[in-house]
Amino acid sequence: MSVTAPRGFRASGVAAGLKSSGARDVALVVNDGPDASAAGVFTANRVKAAPVLWSQQVLRAGLVRAVVLNSGGANACTGAPGFQDTHATAEHAASALAGSADDGPAAGTAAGAGLSTIGAGEVAICSTGLIGERLPMDRLLPGVTAAVAGLTADGGPAAAEAIMTTDTRPKTTVVAGTGWTVGGMAKGSGMLAPALATMLSVVTTDAIAGPAVLDEALRAACRVSFERVDSDGCLSTNDTVLLLASGASGIAPTQAELTAAVTEACRDLARQLIADAEGASKEVAIEVVGAADSDDAVLVGRAVARNNLVKTALFGNDPNWGRILAAVGTTTAAFEPDRIDVAVNGVWVCRSGAAAEDRSKVDLTGRQVTIRIDLHAGPDEATIWTNDLSHAYVHENSAYST
Amino acid sequence: MSVTAPRGFRASGVAAGLKSSGARDVALVVNDGPDASAAGVFTANRVKAAPVLWSQQVLRAGLVRAVVLNSGGANACTGAPGFQDTHATAEHAASALAGSADDGPAAGTAAGAGLSTIGAGEVAICSTGLIGERLPMDRLLPGVTAAVAGLTADGGPAAAEAIMTTDTRPKTTVVAGTGWTVGGMAKGSGMLAPALATMLSVVTTDAIAGPAVLDEALRAACRVSFERVDSDGCLSTNDTVLLLASGASGIAPTQAELTAAVTEACRDLARQLIADAEGASKEVAIEVVGAADSDDAVLVGRAVARNNLVKTALFGNDPNWGRILAAVGTTTAAFEPDRIDVAVNGVWVCRSGAAAEDRSKVDLTGRQVTIRIDLHAGPDEATIWTNDLSHAYVHENSAYST
Repeated sequence: MSVTAPRGFRASGVAAGLKSSGARDVALVVNDGPDASAAGVFTANRVKAAPVLWSQQVLRAGLVRAVVLNSGGANACTGAPGFQDTHATAEHAASALAGSADDGPAAGTAAGAGLSTIGAGEVAICSTGLIGERLPMDRLLPGVTAAVAGLTADGGPAAAEAIMTTDTRPKTTVVAGTGWTVGGMAKGSGMLAPALATMLSVVTTDAIAGPAVLDEALRAACRVSFERVDSDGCLSTNDTVLLLASGASGIAPTQAELTAAVTEACRDLARQLIADAEGASKEVAIEVVGAADSDDAVLVGRAVARNNLVKTALFGNDPNWGRILAAVGTTTAAFEPDRIDVAVNGVWVCRSGAAAEDRSKVDLTGRQVTIRIDLHAGPDEATIWTNDLSHAYVHENSAYST
Repeated sequence: MSVTAPRGFRASGVAAGLKSSGARDVALVVNDGPDASAAGVFTANRVKAAPVLWSQQVLRAGLVRAVVLNSGGANACTGAPGFQDTHATAEHAASALAGSADDGPAAGTAAGAGLSTIGAGEVAICSTGLIGERLPMDRLLPGVTAAVAGLTADGGPAAAEAIMTTDTRPKTTVVAGTGWTVGGMAKGSGMLAPALATMLSVVTTDAIAGPAVLDEALRAACRVSFERVDSDGCLSTNDTVLLLASGASGIAPTQAELTAAVTEACRDLARQLIADAEGASKEVAIEVVGAADSDDAVLVGRAVARNNLVKTALFGNDPNWGRILAAVGTTTAAFEPDRIDVAVNGVWVCRSGAAAEDRSKVDLTGRQVTIRIDLHAGPDEATIWTNDLSHAYVHENSAYST
């Protein structure tokens, strides 16, 4: 049920003609309340797309009543005109939603009442697709109108489909609390895709929670989920994760309960991203243990995840631990080179920085790969998820000007 | 003439059976003096191969009479036994050279006199090949003996051939000073190759120059040559650049003169590495201008050079400036996103962070590509050389367990 699993949300996904394939390309998620609390996490890339700049402003007030998402165009590196396009989209959505609340079937409800006064400043925008080109507003705005008309309480799956780019399947999740629920959707091919690399996610809950509580829950969740997925180290201009709370369950979980549920939802979505990464033949978990601190563990895991020589070796079913050690050696993490142990799929091919068990014992024929690196430098650990580097990756990212 | 172009040097390259192909795999470069000054630059990887650890010790005294180089095995991640192998190789070479100086045709010369007292501590060692396996000493040591026997004043090309791994051709250079000369050889496929990624280079000169002068010249040269080549961002455990001076010309150039000649030699060799990079279909110069300082320019150049989405786009002849901007955006360099200009092969496809000239005007069909990035943040600039990311790269690095 995606983002519409929790009470208080409606969603839709329509085809507006942004994608040449004719597939759904505009999604709308509406929070009917009674609350409209929200939090957001955005790309760390300093080149930020117009919708990211817009949504960061919207989130400052901690109040979001609707999210418009489009595939088929990132609206990044489009200058002031691109920002105006995003603003116009939010204005159009707010106006259409207010109109539908006045006239439509939802009119008498609390939800309708909330939306009848909705302003553009309460509408977050997310875009994904090619960088550097303006969005075709003559198609997008009618698409938003259609998305408003199509809103339903079971529209979550259609919305999840509309945000897909090179994804081969929609990614959704539902996590049950005690009397309240977290739902979510995401798109992105584990950052493996080209200019389509953007990761977008909307997570919803009917729990009662204010913006500060949501913000803490979302940041904690992202740190151990989306931020630990590193497929090719390429950071998009558009990455956005939003958390919306309707309060419709009437239940206010503790911070810890909410954080746990949001974390579970984000982890589930993150793993789905890696599993669907374009051109990947392996899903790789890099478990770094024995680190002096958590930052060191993440640093080492990322260095290995981003190393093209490690990634191509995995594609070739080669447990090349020497490349792994060489990648670890490029970091500033605390470790002694002659104390590091490395296991590939459970076989400790490297002990104390030198060859140990016979590498021919390692079975790399399956899709799941676990690399375990023991730094012997402390008590902390972290897991980074990544993919191999395959011919299909090169093909996908070179053959299409996307 | 490679490393034997300057006076005072002999070299050789022999086949010792380390390579299964039967090609030359052991090289020897001998400095017959009268001087034996030397300087070295080594990999920044914290996981250093045994020969790097050894040679760093040797260079501490600024005195090198001979360099043994082998392909067919990196002797990296081999623990204490691997270090003992390196030590034994240096001992063996020193002993064989001293014996040849006593008995051989060079005996009466100043060179012979110097070598009759050579110690292991004056022999630098460089290795390249698979990480994590011991060297076959029963083949390497006889190979060193043969290399000593084969030393000639025109052996530079044979030595350059013996250090090749996945290189398709030897890399040599000669730069003429006024009455003195700089010669050099290098191996490495622009860091594109797998565990064979090591870059090794020996540069020689018959100028008179002490270790401190050589050190300053070599560091300055490397900063703007080898250190600006970034093919896949993968730093080897074995990278070594050595500069040896025989003083045989009797001429002592100024620091500036020597630095200029060594820089020219290193730049020539670095360009040859990129030109021969495995699996590459493009040689890419990333010119970063308008940087606040030189570090910023290098930082931005490297970020673009290492970005797999940029590299696959170039392989696909796609002037995808959006990916370039997204790569720049991941750095901490001083710039405003909406002021950046980007030209690809002379066409300014991006001005002020947004689309400018028509990307279809860009001709990417040739092998040479120039990306020019103007940060509009200051007066400094730097150029980084790299390659595209191709199917052949994935093939070379996944199909062979090297």
